Formats: sequence, structure tokens, C-alpha cells
Amino acid sequence: MPDSRPFVSLATDFGDAYTSVCAGVIYTIVPDANVLVLSDEITPFGVREGAMLLRQSLPYLPVGVHVGIVDPGVGTPRLPVALVTGRGDVLVGPDNGLLVPAAGALGGVAAAHVLEDPAYRLPSVSASFHGRDVFSPAAAHIAAGVAVAGFGPAVEPMPLNVPAPAVAEGALTVPVLYTDRFGSLVLGAEPADLAAALGAPPGPGTPLDVAWTGPDGDARTARVPFAETFGGVPPGSALLWTDSSGWLGLAVNQGSAAEALGLAGATSITLRRVPVS
Amino acid sequence: MPDSRPFVSLATDFGDAYTSVCAGVIYTIVPDANVLVLSDEITPFGVREGAMLLRQSLPYLPVGVHVGIVDPGVGTPRLPVALVTGRGDVLVGPDNGLLVPAAGALGGVAAAHVLEDPAYRLPSVSASFHGRDVFSPAAAHIAAGVAVAGFGPAVEPMPLNVPAPAVAEGALTVPVLYTDRFGSLVLGAEPADLAAALGAPPGPGTPLDVAWTGPDGDARTARVPFAETFGGVPPGSALLWTDSSGWLGLAVNQGSAAEALGLAGATSITLRRVPVS
Amino acid sequence: MPDSRPFVSLATDFGDAYTSVCAGVIYTIVPDANVLVLSDEITPFGVREGAMLLRQSLPYLPVGVHVGIVDPGVGTPRLPVALVTGRGDVLVGPDNGLLVPAAGALGGVAAAHVLEDPAYRLPSVSASFHGRDVFSPAAAHIAAGVAVAGFGPAVEPMPLNVPAPAVAEGALTVPVLYTDRFGSLVLGAEPADLAAALGAPPGPGTPLDVAWTGPDGDARTARVPFAETFGGVPPGSALLWTDSSGWLGLAVNQGSAAEALGLAGATSITLRRVPVS
Repeated sequence: MPDSRPFVSLATDFGDAYTSVCAGVIYTIVPDANVLVLSDEITPFGVREGAMLLRQSLPYLPVGVHVGIVDPGVGTPRLPVALVTGRGDVLVGPDNGLLVPAAGALGGVAAAHVLEDPAYRLPSVSASFHGRDVFSPAAAHIAAGVAVAGFGPAVEPMPLNVPAPAVAEGALTVPVLYTDRFGSLVLGAEPADLAAALGAPPGPGTPLDVAWTGPDGDARTARVPFAETFGGVPPGSALLWTDSSGWLGLAVNQGSAAEALGLAGATSITLRRVPVS
Repeated sequence: MPDSRPFVSLATDFGDAYTSVCAGVIYTIVPDANVLVLSDEITPFGVREGAMLLRQSLPYLPVGVHVGIVDPGVGTPRLPVALVTGRGDVLVGPDNGLLVPAAGALGGVAAAHVLEDPAYRLPSVSASFHGRDVFSPAAAHIAAGVAVAGFGPAVEPMPLNVPAPAVAEGALTVPVLYTDRFGSLVLGAEPADLAAALGAPPGPGTPLDVAWTGPDGDARTARVPFAETFGGVPPGSALLWTDSSGWLGLAVNQGSAAEALGLAGATSITLRRVPVS
Repeated sequence: MPDSRPFVSLATDFGDAYTSVCAGVIYTIVPDANVLVLSDEITPFGVREGAMLLRQSLPYLPVGVHVGIVDPGVGTPRLPVALVTGRGDVLVGPDNGLLVPAAGALGGVAAAHVLEDPAYRLPSVSASFHGRDVFSPAAAHIAAGVAVAGFGPAVEPMPLNVPAPAVAEGALTVPVLYTDRFGSLVLGAEPADLAAALGAPPGPGTPLDVAWTGPDGDARTARVPFAETFGGVPPGSALLWTDSSGWLGLAVNQGSAAEALGLAGATSITLRRVPVS
């Protein structure tokens, strides 16, 4: 990456000021960098949400150094790492699975090293703000051309812990990965999983029974059509669909599925073929 | 716009990560662009709020390509458009009225074209994320020097649907355009409308009776002075004033008018001359 | 600062669109500037919070022009000022104490001048949006090389009004400076104050009694250990610690201290040695 104006992105659960301090550290080391804050609003400690966000976003960013920090383990012996991807990016962050799905979407992990060399950290490393003191300086030095292998020993990165969807005859049980700002649920399964459960891909308009557990432990259900786009159902109506990243989703056209269906807090849902009556 | 470092702004209701993905698409196509996120916090589906935001903000930004996306119609046949303004900007977004008031504030619409040519879209266009797949690549290619007329046929842009203020003898009824982050209401009228209703512009300190409908359908009123600045009333007190964009506003000095007066949800208010007793 | 690509930061309580308009004004005047939004989410009118944010953040940003705007006095005779720091930065904002602690962290105030010359303001100055009309153009012209002394007369900046911690035998009463996005409290005292109250610095694991007044005026207490890092207590447990800026803090590992302990609204807390029983 020895270009003029190297590209660096930042995705954190820090809020805006702490994330901008990370950008400031990078600009101090590499004044001609182009630093983009991809997100500073990941839910605090939401490793899985952050991993999904990086996975679906980074393929649309320029090849560069991408810092991802959701780090419940700061202050414990978890390792800081850099992953070189097949596309030529370098992903920098804690070794807790956060970066691994994104690396998969960028051509896989070509190399991974621990960020160990104190020469590439701030002179004083705090106990809690490794984003500022460890990850951002490392990213800046990589953007400036330092080879990842020079930071420390090779390491096998930890995978992200995500429950797999459960495919049964006529039913698919999927984890809720996260709920986005519009109140739409992103589900941990792809259309192929649903097709496997139903025996065939559902066509536009096919109704499905959705079941989940409400906040009081009560069983809840809704009948929701599969649709290709939000425009396939009237405003205010729910739909199952495939989102722009290829995940199944549960949404409401011009509304919030979480609110309209009472899905807040649901951690998994089951999709079933509607019985023939 | 064939300058080095072309200027591009983005205003969306997407939240930060989806908006930054749009910036990433632009940087991928035009690495030396200067992309500013004007806002990623427009209320979801708030076309009128977004239109007001663009209208009051864009005149203060450099001449450039400005992307505005509040798009309840994504997935329907609404058109993607680019408007060339009298000042030399290009506004890119859905043809739903969002961009038109801003074009008016930038010298008017000099030309408008449909964004049709697939060569200026991402190779795969999703059903829901035209911000990433259609609008951002179009903006990037325009910033890189592609002429707007090369994208598709000319079109007459749809106007924004905003209710006009109602001027009567001694009373002005105005729509609430939106409530800002401080809880101040921006009203769809200018000082000239108020002067027309009152027979003369209100001087500093002139009291006015404000009436609106509360959340339970109850009639509510407050007596509020007209003031030139927040400092014209004590902290915690309400004022009617002219905001920095030339709209009438209802605010509370160092507080929230929406909270203090119970205005949440009000869609229009009436301002009346105080009767002489 | 006559470098190519001068660095400018912005920290405001404006929300994103108004802050980006400030960035747009700067780019219009200095197209090759590098403008970083440090924060647009300071609590409205939170001068003390903004001052703490600037103080802890600016030392990590490149030397440049840093605009800080939390300005309850806009529209009153409070002065707009620029402070030159020992490190070579220029801090621009209202003269209400907001900038002074940060100047202290950047080598002290070397010079301070009123921003008076209308040549360095926008042609029309509104009553309420001095961020756009006064502070941003001033910052841009300074970034472009105009000397601060050319803006107006020298001035002695107003100090920030912060209550001092009260050190007693075995007890330290400290103001709550602000609560961050994670629900952690930043306290207006340093470890040396606590050591003075206790007679010696508390070692890792030392329990302390924390007392404060609840939202209903009721007395509340909790016993909380001192710890060096979040990892020093189990997830969900509270700790007293020293944050990355050197302030005492009250936090919960992977949680919110404000929520878990019911500290919302507390303006000061008292830390006491645990009595030997």
C-alpha cells in the first residue's frame, strides 16, 4: 500500500469522539491518509453485529487498511492482530472473531500476525483504550508501508462464534444476528437454507409462518409473505426477503419490523411452510 | 467538475455504516474525491425533513456533486435522477421531490436527467440499496467528469409536496416541517407570511398566541414572544424567531420547545395576534 | 500552519448536519483542508462535557486548527476567540471556558485574540449560527495562514467553571463530569486526590464505599473495588479505575454503571475507605 493517500477505515463501538481520536492518531502518523469512519455506532460489545457489518461493508470499500474494534476483552490477554486478505487489504483489531467473516468476503486470510512490536504503538499504552494506543498506530504504520510480518509472530485467528441455522423438514430456525436502524431483522441464514427447509425456493408472495418467543416468554406467530423487494408488499406490511448482503431478513415496508411485530429481544425465529388446509 | 479532488456530499436516512459504504463506493471509483457526509441521521422516510436539510445546507458547501437519499419508493418504478443547478452543482437521488427545494436554493434546475445507463451502476444492482448500487456510482462518475446528459433522457423532476402556510386576518397557520435535535420546531413559513397575517412585522418582544392540537386531540395554547435571538428571552423560556435559514421557528432558550410546551406530534400550529383587553 | 492540507477539527453539540455545514464552509474557503469531525454529539449546552472531551482528545490529533462550539451564550455579548497553544495549535470557539482545559493540555495559552474582523466572517452573520458564520470561516482563514493577531484585540480567556474535588480524612467527594456512551462516569478528580484522601494509593482490589444521592433524594451506596482494568472484575461488576485520560472513573465491565447502580442524574459522589469491622 505505498500509494499516495493510503485508505484506512475505522469501525468501532466507541461513539464519535473516541473513534475520531483514533483517526487523529492515524493522521498524525500518516498525514496524507484518507481515513473513513465506517461506523462508530456498533452496539457496545456487539462482536457479532460488528462482524456482520464489516463482512457486508468492506467489499465495497477501496483496498486498504480496515480497523475493526469491538473488544469486550480489552485488558485481558486476548491478542491484537492484523489479517492480510486475498484482495490485498489488511484488517486490524482484536483476535475475537470480529474480523474473520470480513476476511472471508475479501478473498480469505492470506496471513495473520500478532501486533506485538512496541515500536508501532503509542509510547504509553493505556489499559482500556487499545483502539487509540495499539490498533490505530499499527494501522497507520501498515498504511505507511510497514509489512505485517514485521509486527510479531504468525497466529491462527479465532473464528467468530455464530450459531448455525437449523434446517428441518418444512421448518428453518435461524438466529437473529442483529436489528438495524430501521427495525429490520438480519437473520443468520441464506436463501439456500430456506429452500432446503421448504424443498424449493419460495416464490414471490409465498406466505410463511414465523414463530418466536416474546419478551414474557410467550409464543408468538405471524404470517408473512416472501417478497423480492419492499415494494412487493403494501406500506406498513411485513415481508421476508433477501437483503443486499445475501442474508434473509424480516422487515416492514416503510416501518419497523421489531416494533410492528413485537420482535424486540427475540434471539431466534422459526420459519415454516403454511399448512395446506 | 474536472478539478483535482472533486467534492461530493452525502445526505441519507441510512445511519452511519450504510452511508459510509456509499462513500467507499465513491472513493473506489474516484480515489482523490473529497467526500463529506452531510447527514446520515435524517429521520427514516422523512422526505420533507431531508429536503429542508438539503435546502438550508447545500448553499454553504463547495460546488460539487451532492447525493441526497430518502427513498421510501426504492423497489418501485420511481426514477433515479441527477439535477444540474444554476450554481454548477449536480444533485443526485430519487425523483420524489427531495432534491428540488435545494436546487432552487442553488440557482434553480438547469437540466435534469434519468440515471439509466447501466455502465454507471455497480455490476449487480440490489432491490433495496440503490444508494450503494445506483446513486453513489453515478455521483462518482459525475465527479470524475461524465456529463449528466450521458446518463439517460431528460426528465421534469417531481416537486416536493409541502403544505403552504395559511394567512388570515390576524392569524397564520403553518405546517411543522420538522423538529431538530434541540427540540426546536422549524415552521413552513417565512417572516413575510407572519407580517402579512399581523399587518406588520412583529417587533422584538411582541407576544403572540400559539395554538395547536395536543397528542390526545386536546386544544393547547401558549403565549410566546417574538425575539431576534435566543438571548432575547431568559433561559428556559420559549420564543418565536427566524432561524438561520430564514424559516420561522419555535424554540426554548437552552431547552427543548417540543418537550417544554408539549408539542411532540403537532403537525401544524396557528400564530395569532394577542387580543387587546 | 502554511502546510499543504492543513488540519482542522470540529467538536460541537450541533448534530451531524449543522456540523457538516461548518465543514462545508471550511472546505469552500480552504479546498485542500483535511477536516475531521471530532464530535457532533456533545450534549446540547454541555460546556463542561465538551471541555473534557477536547482536553482528552486534542493531544492525540495533529497540530492544527481545532474548532470547539458549545455555546449557550450565542446571541449574547460573549466573545468569539482564538487561542494559540504552546504546541502550535489554534483553538477557535466561544469564550466560555470550553477551550481552556484543552489549551492547558497542549502546552498552555501562548496568545488569545477576539475574532472581530468582519473580513473573516461570512458576509451575513445570523443571530444563532455562529458556528457557520463566525467560527468556521475564522478557522478556515487561520488554516490558510492568516495570523491570529490579525483578527482582533488580545483577550484574557475565561476559565472553565469546574467544582474541585473535596479531600477529607478517609473520604473524597468528587463532581461527576459526565457520563459517557457506555454509561461509565468520569469523575472530576485524579488518582492523587484519592490517595490523599485515603492516605495511600488504593491497590488493585481495594474495596471502597461509594455514596450518592438517588433521583428521589434518597441516599444510596455501593461497595466497589479499585481495579487497574475492566478485566480486573467479572463481567457485570462495577469498578473504580483510572481512565485513559487520567481521571477517576466508575464503570461496569461490559455494562453500564449509570444503569446498574442507578447513578443517572448524580452530580457528585463520595468515595470512602471501608471501615475495619
